[in-house]
Amino acid sequence: MASTETASEDHGTPTAHRIAPGWDGDLAELDPHGTPGYTGDKRDGKARLAALDDELDELQERLYAQHHGQDEGRSVLLIVQGMDTSGKGGIMRHVVGAVDPQGVDITAFKAPTDEERAHDFLWRIRPRAPRPGMIGVFDRSHYEDVLIHRVHGWADEAEIARRYRAIIDFEQELADAGTVVVKAMLHISHAEQGERLLERLERPDKHWKFNPGDVDEREHWTAYQEAYTAALRATSTPQAPWTVVPADRKWYARIAVQQLLLEALRGIDPQWPAADFDVAEQTARLRATMEP
Amino acid sequence: MASTETASEDHGTPTAHRIAPGWDGDLAELDPHGTPGYTGDKRDGKARLAALDDELDELQERLYAQHHGQDEGRSVLLIVQGMDTSGKGGIMRHVVGAVDPQGVDITAFKAPTDEERAHDFLWRIRPRAPRPGMIGVFDRSHYEDVLIHRVHGWADEAEIARRYRAIIDFEQELADAGTVVVKAMLHISHAEQGERLLERLERPDKHWKFNPGDVDEREHWTAYQEAYTAALRATSTPQAPWTVVPADRKWYARIAVQQLLLEALRGIDPQWPAADFDVAEQTARLRATMEP
Repeated sequence: MASTETASEDHGTPTAHRIAPGWDGDLAELDPHGTPGYTGDKRDGKARLAALDDELDELQERLYAQHHGQDEGRSVLLIVQGMDTSGKGGIMRHVVGAVDPQGVDITAFKAPTDEERAHDFLWRIRPRAPRPGMIGVFDRSHYEDVLIHRVHGWADEAEIARRYRAIIDFEQELADAGTVVVKAMLHISHAEQGERLLERLERPDKHWKFNPGDVDEREHWTAYQEAYTAALRATSTPQAPWTVVPADRKWYARIAVQQLLLEALRGIDPQWPAADFDVAEQTARLRATMEP
Repeated sequence: MASTETASEDHGTPTAHRIAPGWDGDLAELDPHGTPGYTGDKRDGKARLAALDDELDELQERLYAQHHGQDEGRSVLLIVQGMDTSGKGGIMRHVVGAVDPQGVDITAFKAPTDEERAHDFLWRIRPRAPRPGMIGVFDRSHYEDVLIHRVHGWADEAEIARRYRAIIDFEQELADAGTVVVKAMLHISHAEQGERLLERLERPDKHWKFNPGDVDEREHWTAYQEAYTAALRATSTPQAPWTVVPADRKWYARIAVQQLLLEALRGIDPQWPAADFDVAEQTARLRATMEP
């Protein structure tokens, strides 16, 4: 049976967990294996992902058509955070990868260089914000500076609090400039991470994705979950809210992030821009150049 | 019938026209409507494009796995040139867009800014060369500086000759550093361009792609064909050869450029890197962190 047949059935909307401003919950209360809002199974989810690609594609093209090349205009910034193996790469490949690459700008933030370290933590982030008409995507982000730095004690509480404020101000600036900021935290379980790391060790074609440091970081699992909880509480604002995406099921995480992108773009509601030239006049000019 | 069934038939290899170093031909001798090397039709071509995506995808991932993050290593640079409407965007979307966006870096070169104009023409190009492990793609390139500049007389013959030499040196540097340089000229006919521009004028959702300047440039068609011929003669080198891709049939141009990318990657023959850690030791460490 073709996948599009199942896509037309209504299995609900994969909402994931929207983190309201002022939330005082705990990441530990949110099930990494859940499929909130969605009643379909893996096959249905894959069909949904494929079926909604066309809408995502058209919305992206309209956004680009209307706003690209302008000094000011609308854009989307998708920030993807999550523990190692939580599926960030799969989001890039299967969700972001479905839209025209000319309209997308992905930045993967690695450990900062010496030069980057010599500046404020947002110094390397700011230039990567999306230009008008673009979908910017951060694979890891400025949130590493309040997560890993908190876990390892590289920044004290006062500094972390200062960074939360700097992040809120930065994201407010982006929103004020016309960027819809979408923040997705891919939430996997400790057990699932173990299985995924094990697969990387068992398959020679996956060895390159493994780093002994991944096990070191895994030993700080609880501290990371606490750091995420603290960051979600401190930085889920009306202008840049967090969504916690259950990610033990890769297919669910993908349709949930696709849904976030769709909602961001539908909210912008980009329109094909009107011609800034006289269509009849240009058609006549063009026809004059055409063979009889 | 599923597209993969037709893909297995042998319709030959879409070779397009490889421009040998020392070529003294003329672009006008090459048929924009041809399908050199390939006997299939549009449906076969679309099936081929889809069927070879998996190989392209795996080769790209191996390239990234083996070379990304290294100070030195292999990479690919695909340079796409062609007249307005020749299908550059479709190549980005349907050929380049099929591989993992994390491993691809597309740069669309527009008219240079004042700052860029104040520097040598390669100043803005050099930083966009692909890093090890990446597929870099130029949508237009440094060749604009020997095409449009020649057509409009913005540079004299001596300056154009100097730029050819600078380009050859630059591309030699890239090749010496491990980059396979692939240069594709999308070759459309004057009549086909007229039809495609007309479509942009007839469809409101395409108006944004039209610019009255496109008709101005079209009036210089013959001069552009001559400028391309001169550039192809001067800059098709063993280390960075040109391929002229007949582009009146979009489906053919796409499989021909896909073929060029496949050959570049097969030539590199990237391998999954061996683990630089003790797999048994790390497996034991990981298992110690896993639930019973």
